[in-house]
Amino acid sequence: MQIGFVGLGIMGRPQALNLIKGGNKLMVWARRKESMQPLIDAGAAPGTSPKDVAANCDVTFTMVADTPDVQAVVLGPEGCIHGVKKGSVIADMSTISPNATKEIAAQLAAKGAEMLDAPVSGGEIGAVNGTLTIMVGGKPEVFEKVKPLFACMGKTITLVGGNGAGQVAKACNQIVVGVSIQAVSEALALAKRFGVDPAKVREALMGGFAGSKIMEIHGNRMISGDFKPGFKAKLHQKDMRIVMQAAEQLGMALPGAALFTQHLNALIGGGDGELDSSGIYKVIERMAK
Amino acid sequence: MQIGFVGLGIMGRPQALNLIKGGNKLMVWARRKESMQPLIDAGAAPGTSPKDVAANCDVTFTMVADTPDVQAVVLGPEGCIHGVKKGSVIADMSTISPNATKEIAAQLAAKGAEMLDAPVSGGEIGAVNGTLTIMVGGKPEVFEKVKPLFACMGKTITLVGGNGAGQVAKACNQIVVGVSIQAVSEALALAKRFGVDPAKVREALMGGFAGSKIMEIHGNRMISGDFKPGFKAKLHQKDMRIVMQAAEQLGMALPGAALFTQHLNALIGGGDGELDSSGIYKVIERMAK
Repeated sequence: MQIGFVGLGIMGRPQALNLIKGGNKLMVWARRKESMQPLIDAGAAPGTSPKDVAANCDVTFTMVADTPDVQAVVLGPEGCIHGVKKGSVIADMSTISPNATKEIAAQLAAKGAEMLDAPVSGGEIGAVNGTLTIMVGGKPEVFEKVKPLFACMGKTITLVGGNGAGQVAKACNQIVVGVSIQAVSEALALAKRFGVDPAKVREALMGGFAGSKIMEIHGNRMISGDFKPGFKAKLHQKDMRIVMQAAEQLGMALPGAALFTQHLNALIGGGDGELDSSGIYKVIERMAK
Repeated sequence: MQIGFVGLGIMGRPQALNLIKGGNKLMVWARRKESMQPLIDAGAAPGTSPKDVAANCDVTFTMVADTPDVQAVVLGPEGCIHGVKKGSVIADMSTISPNATKEIAAQLAAKGAEMLDAPVSGGEIGAVNGTLTIMVGGKPEVFEKVKPLFACMGKTITLVGGNGAGQVAKACNQIVVGVSIQAVSEALALAKRFGVDPAKVREALMGGFAGSKIMEIHGNRMISGDFKPGFKAKLHQKDMRIVMQAAEQLGMALPGAALFTQHLNALIGGGDGELDSSGIYKVIERMAK
């Protein structure tokens, strides 16, 4: 089986390398030629366009920044859709709009090709270590076919539902992570302002109902004041844009998610878009300065 | 060492029973005489007032509903303060205002008595099973003296800081639990509205950064629609009142905590104050109905 990989940035490059390590034959493409070199050095063949990659591959992964980027590499003039073979699979691992995903899947289906949406969480470290959480939408039989390849890149791999369901799960993930960061930020800022050691509070709370990955890992970032990412605020902002757009399209209120997004805006507006998104702790603290 | 226990409600009764099971001699008092009977049956001596209990005991625990109740049983006309022996300890396990706690500790100190604030999380089940999380404020040497008694009632026992620090930690706990409930509610409501199975989303998210006790336990309540408490909304509302009062006193903004509190108000206003506080999921869902 020939595997394609389109998009070789911070996430895509280590994911593609892990596919090669897993013994797979890869053809790759990236907008910038220099991004392809490390993969070619590792044994991958270079493609001339997303169309070229899709024409030569049974499963093509895409890992790019945002909805328009996926639309460009899949549906654009040199996009995968103009090369896809009947029965082949486009597996998009970017984080984009669930509704846009459904639309892309429908267009691919009209060409006889399958699509999976398979956004990830776990960041660059997860991509490098092959420990990503992968949330998948699509047909069960297509999922089963691609699952061994996902297993080269991730640890927890879940088929959530049909096309778009992976993106919905990712949107849910970003809400939970964001609003939980809000929760821990307010709690630790309150402790500090009371003159109580936030590290002791974190310790006391970890064992109980307030215990979470966010408390464990981001709580430490807030206590030490070290907001080296992790997951950059400006990327979380992009994902919350998808969430708020979904809320508008569905006609539902997500007030906690909206609140967190506003604090992200303030953090990024203050010049800290490159910090970890748990840096909104700084916004909570400085509101009362 | 003679141990006293004042307040024998849903939480106090099983806690006092666990102290007796731990081999301690107990003297008890409760506002309602009938609440004392199960403890007397288990071997406890009845006190005639909180003052009487404190006069006869080396360590007296109090476990009542709210700040005015603690003020009544400790500082009131028949309160512990009028009976306390020099060097004895009042350990208040109620959840009340951190600043009121500091004030009570100061008044007890003027009588030569020690105070610990030791609020708990873990609810009735934790009280019955002796698995409460106990967050303690007070002097280290007083904490060490009382710790073996706390160990009869709880599992995770942390000295957070001086007087009031236990209550601060509890306030932080209620913020994190409440705002995390907000987070999971919005995420699962979004999934459902997209037509994606919330149970699958919960499963996909549990392994990653969004994983938490709240997702694990309250996520299940939201999916099943079974909001049997657990921890009642009206009690969480009382605790959030303490949090919002602290925010006002400290002059700081806790917007996520305030948002969750408003949704609690709406839940309770709809007649659901006896439900688990994760029932705010219902408020999120019905906003768009």
